[in-house]
Order: sequence, then C-alpha cells, then structure tokens
Amino acid sequence: MTHIPEPQQFKEFKEHSVAEFFKKNRQMLGYSGKIKSLTTIIHEYCTNAIDAAEEEGTLPELYVEIKEMGPEHYKVIVEDNGPGIPENYVGKAFGQMLAGTKFHRFVQQRGQQGIGAAGAVMFGQVTTGKPTKVITSHGNGRIFEANLSIDVKKNKAELKNKKKYSGEMKGTRLETELKNIIYQKGMYSPDEYIRRTALANPHIKITYVDPEGATTVIDRAINEIPKRPKEAKPHPSGMTVDDLLGYASISQSQKIKSFLQNDFTRISRSKTNKIQKKVSFDLNKRPSSMTWEEAEELIKAFEEANFMAPPTDVLIPIGEKRLEKAVKEQLEPEFHTVIERNPEIYRGGVPFIVEVALAYGGKSGSENGDDNKEIMRFANRVPLLFNKGSCAVTKGVKSIEWKRYGVDEKTPLTILVNFTSIHVPYIGAGKEAIANEDEVIKEMRLALMDAARKLGRYVKGKKKEYKRLQKKKTFEIYLPEVAKALSMITGKDEKKTAQLLEDIVNERFSDLNINGGKDD
Amino acid sequence: MTHIPEPQQFKEFKEHSVAEFFKKNRQMLGYSGKIKSLTTIIHEYCTNAIDAAEEEGTLPELYVEIKEMGPEHYKVIVEDNGPGIPENYVGKAFGQMLAGTKFHRFVQQRGQQGIGAAGAVMFGQVTTGKPTKVITSHGNGRIFEANLSIDVKKNKAELKNKKKYSGEMKGTRLETELKNIIYQKGMYSPDEYIRRTALANPHIKITYVDPEGATTVIDRAINEIPKRPKEAKPHPSGMTVDDLLGYASISQSQKIKSFLQNDFTRISRSKTNKIQKKVSFDLNKRPSSMTWEEAEELIKAFEEANFMAPPTDVLIPIGEKRLEKAVKEQLEPEFHTVIERNPEIYRGGVPFIVEVALAYGGKSGSENGDDNKEIMRFANRVPLLFNKGSCAVTKGVKSIEWKRYGVDEKTPLTILVNFTSIHVPYIGAGKEAIANEDEVIKEMRLALMDAARKLGRYVKGKKKEYKRLQKKKTFEIYLPEVAKALSMITGKDEKKTAQLLEDIVNERFSDLNINGGKDD
Repeated sequence: MTHIPEPQQFKEFKEHSVAEFFKKNRQMLGYSGKIKSLTTIIHEYCTNAIDAAEEEGTLPELYVEIKEMGPEHYKVIVEDNGPGIPENYVGKAFGQMLAGTKFHRFVQQRGQQGIGAAGAVMFGQVTTGKPTKVITSHGNGRIFEANLSIDVKKNKAELKNKKKYSGEMKGTRLETELKNIIYQKGMYSPDEYIRRTALANPHIKITYVDPEGATTVIDRAINEIPKRPKEAKPHPSGMTVDDLLGYASISQSQKIKSFLQNDFTRISRSKTNKIQKKVSFDLNKRPSSMTWEEAEELIKAFEEANFMAPPTDVLIPIGEKRLEKAVKEQLEPEFHTVIERNPEIYRGGVPFIVEVALAYGGKSGSENGDDNKEIMRFANRVPLLFNKGSCAVTKGVKSIEWKRYGVDEKTPLTILVNFTSIHVPYIGAGKEAIANEDEVIKEMRLALMDAARKLGRYVKGKKKEYKRLQKKKTFEIYLPEVAKALSMITGKDEKKTAQLLEDIVNERFSDLNINGGKDD
Repeated sequence: MTHIPEPQQFKEFKEHSVAEFFKKNRQMLGYSGKIKSLTTIIHEYCTNAIDAAEEEGTLPELYVEIKEMGPEHYKVIVEDNGPGIPENYVGKAFGQMLAGTKFHRFVQQRGQQGIGAAGAVMFGQVTTGKPTKVITSHGNGRIFEANLSIDVKKNKAELKNKKKYSGEMKGTRLETELKNIIYQKGMYSPDEYIRRTALANPHIKITYVDPEGATTVIDRAINEIPKRPKEAKPHPSGMTVDDLLGYASISQSQKIKSFLQNDFTRISRSKTNKIQKKVSFDLNKRPSSMTWEEAEELIKAFEEANFMAPPTDVLIPIGEKRLEKAVKEQLEPEFHTVIERNPEIYRGGVPFIVEVALAYGGKSGSENGDDNKEIMRFANRVPLLFNKGSCAVTKGVKSIEWKRYGVDEKTPLTILVNFTSIHVPYIGAGKEAIANEDEVIKEMRLALMDAARKLGRYVKGKKKEYKRLQKKKTFEIYLPEVAKALSMITGKDEKKTAQLLEDIVNERFSDLNINGGKDD
C-alpha cells in the first residue's frame, strides 16, 4: 500500500459536545430575540416544575418570579412543590444535556428531551457569567443548596458552594440571572405563557410576580390532579422495522411470540397466531436473532392486521369537561364547542390524541393582524407561543375552508388545539412547534372539521336569524302606516289594527332570539 | 447527616448520545414527511459535496442520482470531485455526529454543524437496515471503499467490508438506500432543490438522474471558482462577554492588548489605546486572568468605539453580476434589480451580508396559493425550501408595505434573498430557516426596501404608461370621426386631416414603449 496523503483540511478535525453545539446554536433552543429568550426560560422551568409535582402525584403549585436587576438584566425564579432532587442528581438533572428521566421513557410528559433546563442554565451562564442557584428538599426538614454551572466543552455539571441545612421546604427552586433580554407585555410574554398554562391546566396554582412587582395568584379551578398517564407500550401500528429490531434487541422474552405479546400493546395471543400464518419464519425463535427481512415481514403482517386502538389510559388529554370549563371562564364566548378525538398512532407506533375547542364571540378572537382568528396551540398542555407558521396545528387550521362554515377574517374566533402524546414530534429542540407528520395533520384536520361543522350551524343560523331580525324591524317601521291604511279601508280602529298587526309579526318571529344564540 | 431517600423516578435516570436524540427526533433534522425526507438527504449530501470541492479550490462537479428500488424505496447517489476523505476520517466524517472540520472554524461554508451527513446515513440505516456505501479517492489511483453504519447508542461509526483497489477517481461517492419516502415533482422536490442550487451557484456543473431515468446536465454558466472566503477573526461589535472570555482563555497572546489586536478584526493599536482609557484595569495583564466584570467593561468600551465594518474577504456572496446573470437567464424577467448590502454583524461578532434580487414579469412569480409573490431563500448559496413561515427572510418580506411600491397579490414577482455568513443562525438542526435575530431582520428589511423602491419606480411608471396608452387608443378610435367633422368644417381633404391628426397623436405619445419597460 502506498501512503495516501491527507488533505489539508482534515488537520482541523475535531469532536464537540452537545452543549457546545447548543451554545453556538442557542437559537435552536429558543434563545433568539430578547423577548422570546425570557419566555423560553420561563417555559423550560415551568414544564419541569409541573412534571415533577405531577409525577409524584402532588397537585402542582408554582411560584414564578421575574426580577429586574438592571437594563436588559433579570433574575428568574421558579419553585415547585415536587419531590425535590437527590443531591447526587442535581448536576445531571439541570446541568447536563441529554441526561435525565425523560428521554427514554414511553410515558406522556411535558418535558421529553433532557435538554431544556440545562439549556436555560447555560443561557444564564453565557449572558451573565453567573451560575444558577438550586435549592431543593424532599420535605424531610433537610435542604440542599448549590451553585450550578455547565462545563460546556465536556457537557458536565459543576456544583459549587454546596450547603446542607435544616428548614421547611418541599420541592425545587431555581434562580437564574439573565442578560440581553427584555420583558415586554404582549402575546409573546411570560404573562401570556402563564395565562395559557393556567387555561390548559386548571388544576395548577400559580403565583406570578412580574418585573413591575405585581403579584398575580391564579388559583385552581379544579382541585383534583388529572389521572396519571400510564407508562405505555408501543402500539404495532405505525411501527418501523428499526424500532421493532431495537425493542427485540433489549427484550427479556425468550421467543418472538412472547416478545410480541409482552412488549407491545394490543397484540393478543390470537393476533400472534394470525401473524404466525403470514410470516415465513417461526415465531418461537429468539427476538434478538430476528433479521431485518424477518422484521419487515412482521411489520407487513402488522399492517394487514386490525389492531384495537391504543388504550386510552396512557394518554391524558385535558378532557372535554375541563376544557369546556376553562374556555367558558376565560373567553366567555357566545358559542363554543369542544371535540376530543380517539387516540391515533403516528410513525414508530406512538399514540396521540387531538383535542379542539372553538370559541366564538365574547372575548374570543384576536385583534392582531388582518385575521381575527386566534390560534392557541398546546402540546401535552404546554402552551406553544412561537414558530406558529411551522406548526402542524397551523397547517391543520389553514387546511380548513372556513368560509364554508360561515367564518371569515372578521369572525371573532379562538381555535384551541391540544396535542397529547407520549412523544411530541417537535420540529426543534426549542419545542416551539409540532412537526408536519402526515398522520398528525390528518387528525388535526378531522378534529377541526368536526368542530367547524358545529360552529357553522350556529354561525349560519345566526346569519339567517339576523336577516329575519332585519325583516321584522322593517315590518315594524312600516306597521303604523299599514295600520293606518288598513283602518281607512276596513273602517276599524287604527290602534286595534296596529295591535293586531303587531301580534301577527311577533308571532311570526316568536322564535327569534334577539340577543344572539345560546350554547350548543 | 441523615440519609435522604431517593424519589422513585430517579432510578430511571440515564444519559443519551446525540445520535440517539436525533434518531428519536429525526423530524428535527428534516426527516418528517415522505417527500421532504428525500429532498433533505439530497440537500445534506450536495452541500457536503460542494464544500469539499470548493475548499480544495476545485470547480465543483456533482453527480446526483435517485434510483427507484421499490414502493417508497429509493437509492440516493451523490458523487463529488473534491479531495476525497482519508481512510481514517471516513467514519467520523459521515458516521459520527458533532465531529468534523466545520463546527469550530470561523469560515463561511455551506455545512457548519457536523450533523447533516451522519443524519442522512442514519435515516438510511433506520429505514432500510442497510449501511451507506462510501467510495473515495484522492485521485492518486487508489480507491477506498467501505460500508458505513452508525452505532446510535455510542454515536460512533462502524466501517465494514473495507476494500482498497486501484482505479481512476477523485472525490467521494455516497450511496444510501432509503425507505418510507416518496419522489414527487413540485416545489419541495429534489428537482427544485437542484434547480435552485444551480441558480445560486452558476459555477457548478450538476448531472442529475431522476427516478424516471431522465438525465439533466446543468452546465456551468461561469467557469471560474468564486473567491475563497478567508478564515475570519471575530469582529468586536456584537461580541458577548462569554465569547470574549472564551477567546481569551485559548489565546496565545501574553497581554490583553495583543490579544485584542491579534485575535480580532478591526481592533487597531490606536483603538486599543482608546479602549485602555475607558476601562479600569491594565490591558497589559494576561488574557486568561480577565474577570467577567473586566470583560464586561471591555464589551462596553467596544460598544462605544466606532469599528470599521468587517472585511469583505471573509464573506463571499453570490455577487451582483452573477446574481443578475442567473436571474436573467432563469426567469427572463421584464424588470429586475439586485441589491448587495455591506457586511453587518449579529450577536457574537458574526459578520453577514444580505443580497436581494427582485424579478418582475417573464417567468417570475408563483401561481401557488393566493399570492403570486415567490420567495426564494438561500443561505450561503444553499436553497432553503422548507419552513418558510419561520424564516427571517419571510419575516423581512412580510414587513415591507409592498402596496407602496405598486405590488399587490397579483404582481408576478420573484424575491430572491441570499444570506451569507460565517455562521448561519438556523432555527433547527435541519437547516431549513434562518432565525429571527434582530440584526438580521433589520438588514433583510433594508435590502428589500432598497430593491422595492427601484421596482416601485418601474411598476408605477408602467402603470402611468398604461394609462397613457389607453388614452392614445381612445384618440385613435375617435380619430376618423373627428377627421371627418374637421374636414367638413374646414373643407380640407379628410384623409389628409386624418393623417395630420394621427401625426399629432403619435408625436404626443412618442415616448410610449408599447411593449412594456426595459431593464433598469
């Protein structure tokens, strides 16, 4: 062999940590723009905080404070009432990316990446040079406190000034200073983020202190914690060959047969027997010995089988009643409708549910821009404020011919969509928008059409009613003259004739509801 | 100390590789939707291929083939004429994420993350179970070939079936099989991607074989390779404290003074002296001993200093002449204008240039949707087809009051924007859209307004001309009758009178260009 000379450029070949990557590309985590960056950090800490409490089975109570420290300089404090973090996990939980309890579990949660909180700590660190203060306790009278920073090159946490002391506390408190950010009220503000969090999570109590020092306490509208989603097993529909082989390689089962029945949902013994007849190999072999071609056969057999929909206990949407209550209280609409679809599956066997609420009139709609339609997007009850244009929700909304349902640019309409899933396919690590997966778009569309039909009946009915109201008013205007003419012809009393005519008109239009419609 | 019990959930604490993360979240790399996924892989391989050739100083020549292998099953082949990859770097270059020559260098390139190619290899692997074939040679008669796959859990490449043999080749060829994808013509297709690549890179020869077997050869319009961008030094404007300390910690200089002059662009000796007067500490101290507070003082002094704009040799835009030529040839517009702005700086001292071309009439504009405006987005000459709604380009375009310039929904207009930078702030790892950084949006807006003003003069002139043309036509219609009447009154010959009148009208409107306007 002759020696092959190395091209010059490979002398600069290096390896990088995921933290370095996201430090340089912090915009991918949502840290671009001074207003957005502040809301992003509130978002990351709040989702973590709520998850912590709910996972323990505690009704979440959040304390959120934004303190102004100087020009474009703030301190964010978020405290939860969850179980607290064991001392030896504090660093990894908040100071190391891609480490945690969220990423690999097949369970519905707000957080799912193991990046968000560490990203927020890093943003604080690179804008102020200061660590994040973590204070945590299991509620056993002992409090642990430390200053946390990230060694970005290594993607490792560093804890300094560790302290342990006695005190009353249960939960975790994070304090992060940030620079190069601006607090501004409006649709992209922390205020709006918190308002929408409350809307989709009526079981959470939030105390919010804004930079002007104003304290808002949003009390619970509901005193019970939502059912905990069960840890799911993947569903055979939408499963890919690679996923199937991945599950097979770590399965405890001795045979593919039992692997199918144990490690997946909705594969019964009889289904397994049917599948056996469709594949060319023996399902009694070891799962780990399955080849790509055999797995392909299985996937094909899955596609032809008719599995039951995924169980509903692994997905906990907001729920029709709660959503209805929240919409009524917050938007006081003239008309509203709520649709909850059945669970569906997208690629990889991941189950999801789409919920839609439409609210018309009252405080519904938006006055920003040319279109009065307001779209409120949620994923696992987490408000999505940014990157609207790229979101599957927006694509779904745009795919509807709203005019068909009597809705135009001037209609005061709020469209609320909550996407619930074990794994939300966010388009980026900043978790701002749901990717346009084909199956997701389809469900969005079906749910929205369903709701729009109901709205359409109301709006069109209302338009018809409005026309009839106009007609009635016209009658009423001409009624005195007609009465006069009639009384001249018939010789009857003019007043009585007028009364008679009025009675006829009123009877004819007796069904008219002059104040507009009622709830469906 | 009492023992603090561990909350249950921390038993499931794990660490994950960046490859695992992007396997689960492949939509973040652009792999969502069957049509988009195919274009994404073409995009990743083509940008790598062009970078390789250009970096070596070779006029790029690309071979791109998409072969249909079965239903939703294709093979993608991309071959370049670059320097080839040394055997011991093949795995890291294409089979390991966050490794490479791109991420850390301060030089304008198409690729910049060290994720894209490995992501494409991984997508092939998880949809087909097959490795990517890599064939590469430095052009020395020796060829290296191997099958590459990724150990996702470890984020490490695996090379199998390695072969070395003699043969004529220079460059690198990748062959990846993919499933669950669809080839479809249209605005999101590989065809469109390649068409736009050629538009923004008239110095590249591309041979493209589509799945139907049709071969398109796009020859070079320009036979010289664009100037190579020089490796840049960061510019003091927009520098953050964290960046400054980062550079200081790895500086070779003994004093902050020399550090400033050597490691940055546009900081002269006299500027350093001025800076010394504004800060409270001695610039003769070691760079690595600088504190956060001292760095803050420096940044403040930077903000008050008036540095020269970044040098233009580190950024190579398409260039006015080339862009003009490309627009003329591809769109055959009735009117066009090209604007190239001066370099500007966004956060972290990263320089960028915005170029805008507007093309009106001819093949300009789009007939998709309600608006005939077509927006063509490029970053470092790479076409951006997806995620339009989130892109700084779109935000810039939307911020312009087009009506002011005589442009409405029906105007056949193509807006081409190329963003050139040492680091493009993509909103996601899929490199689909440019983040809404404040400074970037501002420049987009200024460039677009500049171009729109020129267009406006043309369009409005054209409208005025159109009105005069209508007036002339009216004269011409009534001319015979007027001539008749005149000849009756004056007794002169009708024909002569008509001729006289015609001459008057023609003279009056002699400046009218009936076929529309000309280029600016």
